[in-house]
Amino acid sequence: MSDFLQNAPHRRFNPLTGAWALVSPHRTQRPWRGQLEASAAETLPRRQPGCYLCPGEVRANGKRNPDYETVFVFDNDFPALLPDADGKAVEEGELLIARPETGFCRVLCFSPRHDLTLSRMETRDIASVVEAWRDEYVALGARDNVRYVQIFENRGAMMGASNPHPHCQIWASSSLPDEPLKEDQKQADYLARKGSCLLCDYLACERDAKERIICENDAFLVLVPFWAVWPFETMIISKRHFGGLEALTNAEVEALADVLKRLTTRYDNLFAAPFPYTMGLHPQPTDGRAYPHWHFHAHFYPPLLRSATIRKFMVGYEMLAAPQRDITPEQAAASLRASAEWFG
Amino acid sequence: MSDFLQNAPHRRFNPLTGAWALVSPHRTQRPWRGQLEASAAETLPRRQPGCYLCPGEVRANGKRNPDYETVFVFDNDFPALLPDADGKAVEEGELLIARPETGFCRVLCFSPRHDLTLSRMETRDIASVVEAWRDEYVALGARDNVRYVQIFENRGAMMGASNPHPHCQIWASSSLPDEPLKEDQKQADYLARKGSCLLCDYLACERDAKERIICENDAFLVLVPFWAVWPFETMIISKRHFGGLEALTNAEVEALADVLKRLTTRYDNLFAAPFPYTMGLHPQPTDGRAYPHWHFHAHFYPPLLRSATIRKFMVGYEMLAAPQRDITPEQAAASLRASAEWFG
Ligand SMILES: O=P(O)(O)O[C@H]1O[C@H](CO)[C@@H](O)[C@H](O)[C@H]1O
Ligand SMILES: O=P(O)(O)O[C@H]1O[C@H](CO)[C@@H](O)[C@H](O)[C@H]1O
Repeated sequence: MSDFLQNAPHRRFNPLTGAWALVSPHRTQRPWRGQLEASAAETLPRRQPGCYLCPGEVRANGKRNPDYETVFVFDNDFPALLPDADGKAVEEGELLIARPETGFCRVLCFSPRHDLTLSRMETRDIASVVEAWRDEYVALGARDNVRYVQIFENRGAMMGASNPHPHCQIWASSSLPDEPLKEDQKQADYLARKGSCLLCDYLACERDAKERIICENDAFLVLVPFWAVWPFETMIISKRHFGGLEALTNAEVEALADVLKRLTTRYDNLFAAPFPYTMGLHPQPTDGRAYPHWHFHAHFYPPLLRSATIRKFMVGYEMLAAPQRDITPEQAAASLRASAEWFG
Repeated sequence: MSDFLQNAPHRRFNPLTGAWALVSPHRTQRPWRGQLEASAAETLPRRQPGCYLCPGEVRANGKRNPDYETVFVFDNDFPALLPDADGKAVEEGELLIARPETGFCRVLCFSPRHDLTLSRMETRDIASVVEAWRDEYVALGARDNVRYVQIFENRGAMMGASNPHPHCQIWASSSLPDEPLKEDQKQADYLARKGSCLLCDYLACERDAKERIICENDAFLVLVPFWAVWPFETMIISKRHFGGLEALTNAEVEALADVLKRLTTRYDNLFAAPFPYTMGLHPQPTDGRAYPHWHFHAHFYPPLLRSATIRKFMVGYEMLAAPQRDITPEQAAASLRASAEWFG
């Protein structure tokens, strides 16, 4: 890789979304005088009386959770989307445009244990989570009027998680949201022009270059993408070309669980503290159309920059102009490669 | 405005960028159990020994600040951009693409007083800030190879501001960053198709509708845009059609200072605490080409949701799929209209 990418300001292109990010490698020595985050090192109990995600507890709607032993899925008590639309589109000229949106919001508890995280769970128990993702994706995707099933986890108070009990959310919507829409367009366009899959070709590039790869197994590769915006942003990319979660073989379910555990453990070890992040899956849309260009992958967007208490703020220039980062993706990958896959 | 927009989930279109946001008006009763922010009610001294932005203090590069009395502008000691490029573009296939980026980063102190904010400054002193914006925009924009001058303020520790001394930053870059690029394309496209200016037409819509307007004077209108993403996001739009800051008349300098003071005071009064935000100006690009379609405006992106300690997190669904909000732009505008323009 060209030397200047490690030393001089430049911008990098994200071929999956068409966005550019500014990279300022020379700026890593900047002192931080701003807000310090609370470190999340508190010890949690295995069960937390009053936690609405723990087995046997009562939720906001008055229902009692079952005494579940692996995963537990239920309808979100405060859903952002509702199954039925009332009202019709607003369209005043080209400037005031609104459309009804319908859908379903679900919550999936990863474990009955209040104190675990993906990194601290057994791989076989994470495999149950991946199976539940596959089941929910298939079931929600089969409903009328669900074009996209977004599965995501907000981990850590810094990332807006309102409860440390390990869980994710699933929002299934009647339209294709902007981020997967951009990825759809870019992947379709690439296939049409080049006759090959964008992420298959990208995997080949990265296996040649090696410098951004963190870990892998038979079915998945974990890397810091060349165009990463967050300091330790990563992607999990399937080695086999497929688009939807229904295509996951049982071996791939195990393999995805394996890289999820290994990657989240590396994150926790990086600053010797539970690592906050938003992560989510990007399988293909579920409107029944063909998506030969779509290649399954997942994104991790963690906010930490230099320690458990110093985060990157995406504000100011980022909100008004373009994302900016200091440490390069290659430096981030080297740090994550040097971080252990087990707890000491 | 159609009733369903106040009651049912829908998405709204941003004609300036082409993005969609999900609005969930029924969800405002959701209890918040997550992280509470520190409230910023501390009292600051008029001068803070050791503050690198105060008059007479020494900065990281060893230079001493002058005893300035109004505004003070200097080169950022830790610039994200540098004037000279070394290295050339990387272009491996269509997947690993990077380009050198050059530019200038400046810091502008609004006042010698460490304890003030725009809301607590005199309008005539804010006018000095606006004049300095105009001067910097013109001077930086006239340099070779500066295509865009982004002026922005991160206010409050929650927004990554590393120093409460009132100041903004100015990053001038050799390329047009993505956000102004999108606004450029959308405004140009609108003018080409309709023969009129997008924001001139939008101003007319909003003056008819009234429900999203917060305040105004002869030269500027302040409103919550129909497509606002942040709970109390606002735009300041010039009533006269012009694109660059060089076009600001002296009366418009005063008028912009006036709405800045009134808007930031309303923000501070909303939750009876200093209101954090990122704000920035979007004047036209400075590459010397004609931008007849560009209409000058400013954006405020404040993170607070329900109180000085409860913020909106743009995480999870927002990062992976699309932005989501609970209270509607019309409700936010009503709250800001009800908030006073003076301190009690
Ligand atoms: O230069 P500052 O104010 O210390 O830095 C702040 O603003 C920059 C520009 O928006 C961001 O890139 C940083 O993440 C933020 O902490
Ligand atoms: O539903 P939760 O986890 O309480 O809410 C969290 O995730 C949502 C989806 O990303 C966001 O819209 C909220 O801002 C965030 O606090």
